[in-house]
Amino acid sequence: MLTLDTVYQAAFTLKQVARCTDLIRAPKMFPDSEVYLKTENLQVTGSFKLRGAYYKMSRLTDEQKKKGVVACSAGNHAQGVALAASRQGIEAIICIPEGAPISKVEATRSLGATVELVKGVYDDAYERAHQICAETGKTMIHPFDDEDVIAGQGTLGLEILDQLPDVDVVIVPIGGGGLISGVAYVLKMLRPEIKVYGVQAAGAPSMLNSLEHHKIEALPSVSTVSDGIAVKCPGELTYKYVEKFVDKVVTVTDDEVACAILDLMEKQKLVAEGAGAVAVAAAMFDKVDIKGKKTVCLVSGGNIDVTILSRVINRALLREGRYADFTIALQDKPGQLAEISSIVARHGANVVGVFHEKAGSGTDLNSCTLRLTIETRDHKHVMEIKDAVKKAGYDIIAELS
Amino acid sequence: MLTLDTVYQAAFTLKQVARCTDLIRAPKMFPDSEVYLKTENLQVTGSFKLRGAYYKMSRLTDEQKKKGVVACSAGNHAQGVALAASRQGIEAIICIPEGAPISKVEATRSLGATVELVKGVYDDAYERAHQICAETGKTMIHPFDDEDVIAGQGTLGLEILDQLPDVDVVIVPIGGGGLISGVAYVLKMLRPEIKVYGVQAAGAPSMLNSLEHHKIEALPSVSTVSDGIAVKCPGELTYKYVEKFVDKVVTVTDDEVACAILDLMEKQKLVAEGAGAVAVAAAMFDKVDIKGKKTVCLVSGGNIDVTILSRVINRALLREGRYADFTIALQDKPGQLAEISSIVARHGANVVGVFHEKAGSGTDLNSCTLRLTIETRDHKHVMEIKDAVKKAGYDIIAELS
Repeated sequence: MLTLDTVYQAAFTLKQVARCTDLIRAPKMFPDSEVYLKTENLQVTGSFKLRGAYYKMSRLTDEQKKKGVVACSAGNHAQGVALAASRQGIEAIICIPEGAPISKVEATRSLGATVELVKGVYDDAYERAHQICAETGKTMIHPFDDEDVIAGQGTLGLEILDQLPDVDVVIVPIGGGGLISGVAYVLKMLRPEIKVYGVQAAGAPSMLNSLEHHKIEALPSVSTVSDGIAVKCPGELTYKYVEKFVDKVVTVTDDEVACAILDLMEKQKLVAEGAGAVAVAAAMFDKVDIKGKKTVCLVSGGNIDVTILSRVINRALLREGRYADFTIALQDKPGQLAEISSIVARHGANVVGVFHEKAGSGTDLNSCTLRLTIETRDHKHVMEIKDAVKKAGYDIIAELS
Repeated sequence: MLTLDTVYQAAFTLKQVARCTDLIRAPKMFPDSEVYLKTENLQVTGSFKLRGAYYKMSRLTDEQKKKGVVACSAGNHAQGVALAASRQGIEAIICIPEGAPISKVEATRSLGATVELVKGVYDDAYERAHQICAETGKTMIHPFDDEDVIAGQGTLGLEILDQLPDVDVVIVPIGGGGLISGVAYVLKMLRPEIKVYGVQAAGAPSMLNSLEHHKIEALPSVSTVSDGIAVKCPGELTYKYVEKFVDKVVTVTDDEVACAILDLMEKQKLVAEGAGAVAVAAAMFDKVDIKGKKTVCLVSGGNIDVTILSRVINRALLREGRYADFTIALQDKPGQLAEISSIVARHGANVVGVFHEKAGSGTDLNSCTLRLTIETRDHKHVMEIKDAVKKAGYDIIAELS
């Protein structure tokens, strides 16, 4: 069982390597509530994972350190283990499933770890990691189901209490549950009246599912933009901690996460990955009660692939009516493009793209289509422009939504 | 003339409204040097501009405060003035040129200011702002050429010295020169041995140009992705401060800025606007000597339009060989798409987009073209894939670069 003593020891050990990340108020995102962001996306390696991995390794025997460590991850745990190991002079092998983004593989390598790309999916890489440990006597660093790893993540609870002693609500992402186990334990030990809420991706609700069924259950599959918390099965330890110390677990959809990522970028200038944005999404979309409460959303990481980020941006802009994309049927005669352009201009929207095509499928041979991509203020603005186009006698034959 | 006394007073006044932003080391971006980022993009309103505007307004007489203030800006100064005014119960009118991004207009309005959209460009809006002041007796808040505004920005110099007392080099963006005037003054007064370098956009080198000609000169036009520092003419005060206290002024290109923005996002999880990234770009591209020196890059702001951000991301990825887009001529027969796909797969690149078109212009009637968009590791990787495609007998007929 965890003790506060262990977490304080972890906090002291981590002073050598981890930053005490800033707690930043977000009034632009939450004008009516006092909401703060604990910016672990600004942590060294871009996520909180360094904390648990480093503390775990600091507790190994000299013999274990000499033999080295193994981990399985395509993401933040990989980078956390890689840096923690190199800082302590320990050799690390990270098993990564073959299909992982190039950027994550490169990031792990650049932190000094040996990467072994394993054919197949996560489970295959996990098996291979265990096999290496069995063959070589190296130590497996589990991403969440480990008392020392949990103690390392728990140091975030100490920092939050230090930075905002009278906090009322703390919202924490849940994948395997290591982060929230440590944080909830610390908060409830020191100030039991604080509410601690956990957030999972709607496409990977393994902890919520297990809690509802009162036993640990694996999901057959998971699917979410928040790959950092796409975990099929909670840990044995973490299940117990969450059951005991967490007040409620909720879920957020991919669209909600995309909006949270966009808001964090636009309003707070912070890059968060999907898993890092779920706590913010839960607060934005009223999944938990934060009204009148001093609330901390734990932004757990920022390691999102920029190409995915670009897609998330477009999707969220579309959803918020900040961006519209529709196709209009034109008769093939002069002046129509000019007329539609002037409608758009009169309504104060910015044209981003125009795609004008003759005789597309779905139109008369004699006609053509105009696809317009525009920047707009909100859904009402989009509606006004579409109405004006229709009133001028044009058909809108397709729309991106 | 500025005094340290005034800057200390400004720092005390600003405690009510501005954050002391974090100074974050960036070892991933600069593995060989000790480089820190002063994260003013995380400042309230997303830029340092709040500092000068708030302090300036705090110094107005009660009479002046009652009459209100006017400013002209499409960007950070607008938001800085808007928030500073509303926090001090002062009415603010912000003149914004009509073509400004919707997002910036909305942001300024949401901070409580009255926005007046002015037909034409910045100069027209500036004239209109002066006209309003002349007619109503309101006070104009100049974005840079004002002793109190400079004192407010100078508080950043105090914070940097407090956070990294033995700093050797500080790199600061220059638009009109208000920020660097305040920062350089403070640094040189307290520790004259610190080197202070200024950075301008290559497409808007008004301060550099004036310094070289030993007199203030306006540029006929400016063009840069860093709109926050696209200033045609330095101020009279700021010119004097820069001439006296700044060691060197350098420029960076739009491509260099795009790379800096991307690196800040990917490696530091920070969203910077163009103007906010120029100091980092100068350090990345060896425009100033930082080797072996404790260096601070001032990241002055983060208010970049997300659609522009999306474009910057794509451009920078292309430039770094992380992304390639080329068109291959195919004969119109089965198996060719499969062959090329397998070449790409064998080389470990991820396919982002495929556009297959028959009888495109520039090819035989009997042939077709295949446009491939792929994610790659670096330029070497791109070259390997292109070589393999060519060796298999295909022509690459176009390439995005």
